[in-house]
Amino acid sequence: MFRLYYATGTCALATHIALEEAGAPYEAVRLDFASQAQRSPDYLAVNPKGRVPALVTESGTLTETPALLLYVAQRFPAAELAPLSDPFLLGQVQEFNSYLCATVHVAHAHGRRGSRWADDEAAIAAMQRKVTANMTECFERIEHKLLQGPWVIGDRYTICDPYLFTIGSWLEGDGIDTSKLPRVIEHRRRMLTRPAVQKAVSVEGTQIG
Amino acid sequence: MFRLYYATGTCALATHIALEEAGAPYEAVRLDFASQAQRSPDYLAVNPKGRVPALVTESGTLTETPALLLYVAQRFPAAELAPLSDPFLLGQVQEFNSYLCATVHVAHAHGRRGSRWADDEAAIAAMQRKVTANMTECFERIEHKLLQGPWVIGDRYTICDPYLFTIGSWLEGDGIDTSKLPRVIEHRRRMLTRPAVQKAVSVEGTQIG
Repeated sequence: MFRLYYATGTCALATHIALEEAGAPYEAVRLDFASQAQRSPDYLAVNPKGRVPALVTESGTLTETPALLLYVAQRFPAAELAPLSDPFLLGQVQEFNSYLCATVHVAHAHGRRGSRWADDEAAIAAMQRKVTANMTECFERIEHKLLQGPWVIGDRYTICDPYLFTIGSWLEGDGIDTSKLPRVIEHRRRMLTRPAVQKAVSVEGTQIG
Repeated sequence: MFRLYYATGTCALATHIALEEAGAPYEAVRLDFASQAQRSPDYLAVNPKGRVPALVTESGTLTETPALLLYVAQRFPAAELAPLSDPFLLGQVQEFNSYLCATVHVAHAHGRRGSRWADDEAAIAAMQRKVTANMTECFERIEHKLLQGPWVIGDRYTICDPYLFTIGSWLEGDGIDTSKLPRVIEHRRRMLTRPAVQKAVSVEGTQIG
């Protein structure tokens, strides 16, 4: 039985959906970020980075969304969540997920967590002012170039899809005009028809749109 | 024959080393960032993101370092650059590389590329002032927790090692006191004894330390 630590509104939702898609045995444990539960000694013993997601497995604890998604895909191959035996296709999957992790999530984080990268209030406010433009640029690239359709990697549902859905759930909060992202929004709607997505969204209490 | 696009002093060095370690057939193509070659129409046709690395393969082009490293490991399994058939160990590899990509590289980038995240000069200067502290925090975590030794994932050389070596080559430029990172510096020395590392460093003209 795995244990997934998550907080509502975070990227942990992607792994939560993947675990549901895989039919993995797991328990979801909610952390209350409002009370800084991610900084509690108990949780820092699980994940010293003080972030979510963290997945406790029988072999040890793993963190970082792209790693967890690949791990779930590889542990539950029958669910076919990644093209594990095709290096180029798997490279495309990891390329997309790396972009979400290191560019898109980071662009979003400058609106909420600017204090990671500067100490003064004026600089943090300057970062916040650029979030909408940066997220728009990222999602225009996804809309026009990266999202092959109907799923991220074409006809095949993969671990890219829950991750895009999760980061895409932040668009409205980041002030993005989603009317210019019809393919991304159609992808969101398609995701919401899947029982695994419905279950994870319901358990977490995720606000979509 | 692959084509690897790189620029000196960038994270492309990690993939360059991995290609050498794998004995892959490739050609390394240098981009001159000083003349903004990464923004030229010719290069944007290769990688619309205007960044390095990009690896042109017989199936198409891949970008994003963690994806390229896994691709090289999977394409050349005889080189044993990743524990491909052990989901947990591979999860640890991807966890480490995701951390480098999305946290450590991003911390460094705020010193050189602050204009990605804010438009005014004072905010960009505020970001620069925090780079040394953030990189120190990241590398103390690597020194004391993540680097198992002698290689990142214990006794086994993997695609984590060229990536750590590459990002670690930025420490002195970011004002880090490396005397507090003896294990990281010992890892650097160990890497520099490998012919694949010597070759890539020599071709790129990388400054180490």
